Amino acid sequence: MTYAMIGTWRMAYEGLSKGLDLLKGGGTSGDAVESAIKKVEDYPFFKSVGYGGLPNENGLVELDSAFMSGDTFGVGAVMGISDVKNPISIARSLSHEHFNSVLVGEGASQYATKNGFERKNMLTPRAKKIWEKRKAEIAEKNLSPYDGHDTVGMVSLDQTGSMSVGTSTSGLFMKKAGRTGDSALVGDGFYVDSDIGGAAATGLGEDIMKGCLCYEIVRLMGTGLSPQEACDKALYPFLRKLKKRFGKIGEFSLVALNKDGQWGVSTNVEFTFAMGTEKEAPAVYIAYPDENDKTKISPITQEWMDAYEKRIKAPID
Amino acid sequence: MTYAMIGTWRMAYEGLSKGLDLLKGGGTSGDAVESAIKKVEDYPFFKSVGYGGLPNENGLVELDSAFMSGDTFGVGAVMGISDVKNPISIARSLSHEHFNSVLVGEGASQYATKNGFERKNMLTPRAKKIWEKRKAEIAEKNLSPYDGHDTVGMVSLDQTGSMSVGTSTSGLFMKKAGRTGDSALVGDGFYVDSDIGGAAATGLGEDIMKGCLCYEIVRLMGTGLSPQEACDKALYPFLRKLKKRFGKIGEFSLVALNKDGQWGVSTNVEFTFAMGTEKEAPAVYIAYPDENDKTKISPITQEWMDAYEKRIKAPID
Repeated sequence: MTYAMIGTWRMAYEGLSKGLDLLKGGGTSGDAVESAIKKVEDYPFFKSVGYGGLPNENGLVELDSAFMSGDTFGVGAVMGISDVKNPISIARSLSHEHFNSVLVGEGASQYATKNGFERKNMLTPRAKKIWEKRKAEIAEKNLSPYDGHDTVGMVSLDQTGSMSVGTSTSGLFMKKAGRTGDSALVGDGFYVDSDIGGAAATGLGEDIMKGCLCYEIVRLMGTGLSPQEACDKALYPFLRKLKKRFGKIGEFSLVALNKDGQWGVSTNVEFTFAMGTEKEAPAVYIAYPDENDKTKISPITQEWMDAYEKRIKAPID
Repeated sequence: MTYAMIGTWRMAYEGLSKGLDLLKGGGTSGDAVESAIKKVEDYPFFKSVGYGGLPNENGLVELDSAFMSGDTFGVGAVMGISDVKNPISIARSLSHEHFNSVLVGEGASQYATKNGFERKNMLTPRAKKIWEKRKAEIAEKNLSPYDGHDTVGMVSLDQTGSMSVGTSTSGLFMKKAGRTGDSALVGDGFYVDSDIGGAAATGLGEDIMKGCLCYEIVRLMGTGLSPQEACDKALYPFLRKLKKRFGKIGEFSLVALNKDGQWGVSTNVEFTFAMGTEKEAPAVYIAYPDENDKTKISPITQEWMDAYEKRIKAPID
């Protein structure tokens, strides 16, 4: 049996590399996803996940996270949780419960305390500065406040054939208090079945959820499509349908992995992701929508990586 | 064009009758769903929806509700909201938003206040008595606290061919603070596409969400299956799969309506529902799982209705 892992955005890379090390050593798909996402949550310069994530309109960092086992279909999720160091660990813990496995708001935060999960003020001075600057810009220039909503989503396959998926995000920047997106909604932001494969989404959650795209991708893989074919087929026709019906659409990006370690992605924007398998070292790639409902994928350039590094650490004036 | 409406449980009946009156007079599918569910929310003797709904383990009534337009795919939802008279109206209002259309916990409650929705303490003296009694029983007899979780879900078709779906529930009785189920999760507890049809679910949300069953039913209807065929095909094989994978399963019941006004249901328990169309007066039916992955449906008896009426109003000692 092989092993593999895919994750959304360049930010997934270091965590995914760690997850692949675990998988190589015989670790479980669940441990790989949890430890990979914890690494992303813990890094203060990723401003849409965990510590350093941007706050809501009131200045509070509210987090969403989910975990699903492809073996049992066990799902755990938290929405609008605050002051917790690793939402993914709470979500995974909940996935073992038959009742009360999805918790929102203050109840989710209370669960974390009662069950010994580490509490932490997740607002960094840097995130606070970005929030204050944005508040001023919105007031001055009458801008739409909503900008930035990158979820980390990871799908993993271990050497026993087990698969897992996890997501974590601070959600839409400047969101209203209590707003949640697709990241903690089963079938919308994530889905996995170890007999088939798994998928995770990132983008404007309000739109992604309208299509149940992660469930649909897994279902399509179950009919024999490759992960790439399933991603393309689920996303591109739905974008046209939603544009026609709702009148406007946000950003959508999807990653998928099947039980043989094959992978795919689709997107309607410039989208980076990280991927690694038993045979391919972990690396970052960049994807764009192509003609005829296809996706164009290339290895990332060093220039892109350098510019990214500079951008996420640039001083906030 | 015809019109039709279907709703989960006997409790849907009076609201659905009102909704059908609206549809007969040319009302929209959205107005029919909202006014029908409001009627269920307002009736104090239905103990799993709105006013009179049973509280969580702390004695607080926390409500979940969602609304989806089959024309636009617009989705609005609230989870873990408290002290609001009509969660369905808040969900419907949110469905018009492109951002912040799903709100959880305290943020959802704040939205209701800021936008002029009526606040109300949703705990009735009767519900409080039931909760106190249950608390004592659990302590004495070491019972599993979780019992009762009936969501009202309604799907409607209006004379212009528009379809809508709505759900509302106080969730699992004695749930942990912040617990939510499938009722406000798109594709899991509800889905609708006016070009095809819609579906809604009730039962143990933690399990229903594992299968994305409402999305799957609508998708199957889109391949040409009747609502009854789609309900049977989505539910029964999934129950076997989940039993095998997760080891245990809760209660599942589903209703569906297509764009031609045909309907279907499937269930793994005794399940009542209400239904009416242009040609059939609103009535309550009772369904059971049958052999060979089919569903057995009969008109309700007067005896059943009388016993129900007596049961929901019985004194709490």
